[in-house]
Amino acid sequence: MKRKSLEHAACPIARSLDEIGEWWSLLIVRDAALGKRRFGEFHKSLGLAKNVLAARLKKMVDRGIFEMVPAADGSGRQEYQLTAKGNELRMVLVALRLWGGRWLFAKEGRTLTLVDPASGEEVALQLRTETGRRVTPGGLVPRVRRRARAGIRS
Amino acid sequence: MKRKSLEHAACPIARSLDEIGEWWSLLIVRDAALGKRRFGEFHKSLGLAKNVLAARLKKMVDRGIFEMVPAADGSGRQEYQLTAKGNELRMVLVALRLWGGRWLFAKEGRTLTLVDPASGEEVALQLRTETGRRVTPGGLVPRVRRRARAGIRS
Repeated sequence: MKRKSLEHAACPIARSLDEIGEWWSLLIVRDAALGKRRFGEFHKSLGLAKNVLAARLKKMVDRGIFEMVPAADGSGRQEYQLTAKGNELRMVLVALRLWGGRWLFAKEGRTLTLVDPASGEEVALQLRTETGRRVTPGGLVPRVRRRARAGIRS
Repeated sequence: MKRKSLEHAACPIARSLDEIGEWWSLLIVRDAALGKRRFGEFHKSLGLAKNVLAARLKKMVDRGIFEMVPAADGSGRQEYQLTAKGNELRMVLVALRLWGGRWLFAKEGRTLTLVDPASGEEVALQLRTETGRRVTPGGLVPRVRRRARAGIRS
């Protein structure tokens, strides 16, 4: 079934889902966040058909989540590098990781958490205001900022 | 194309993607987080075919993201209520919302943010340790907790 495009939806959640495109694409972003940069590395990690992987990578390059850069080894090969926009998907990945680790390993008698190696403490995602006050998602309200030109916020 | 099931994947991100099932399903969770509880409300909001919506809701009930409860109005009708597990998907929704608001409205000259109405301050997602120290996703390490029985952590 062809999915209705949410590219122009008013809801930023719907637009995000459209932008990423496919669930699997987030696993490519995960691999990139873990240091993978080459087509062959993604292919080996994910086991997707090459044409499917190529299409998803191309879409994410088109959308500015990845950019193509020359490999550092001077081989002339192109590699996939997360852009700033792509890098900020890490928070989505961390949210999925913490949720999955908490709820989806129970049948095996396990819970998976993330730990700060410096202190050994477990970490959690929190919503904080600019001055550091902790808030819950429930009562937040949207705000629209209009920009006259790049970099200028009004 | 039939997707490989990630239900038993070692990676909690992959399992989470499998558990939620379809991108669109997150929009059902979004609607529920905003107060919708009835099939007709989800149908009106999302514009999905009824059989598709019913299948996705059923899957999420089976997976323990929603539970069926009698309507509060005593009509005997069943409503969909997020479980604790479903409620914790809010952090995934917030992460998608903040990312989309920041990156996907630029062509329209806009940025969408979330604001704490009490203070008027914008909010952001942060990773914090148990004692409140802020950390970045990059260097975190996984930890497995095994549970001998429910409620007992070792």
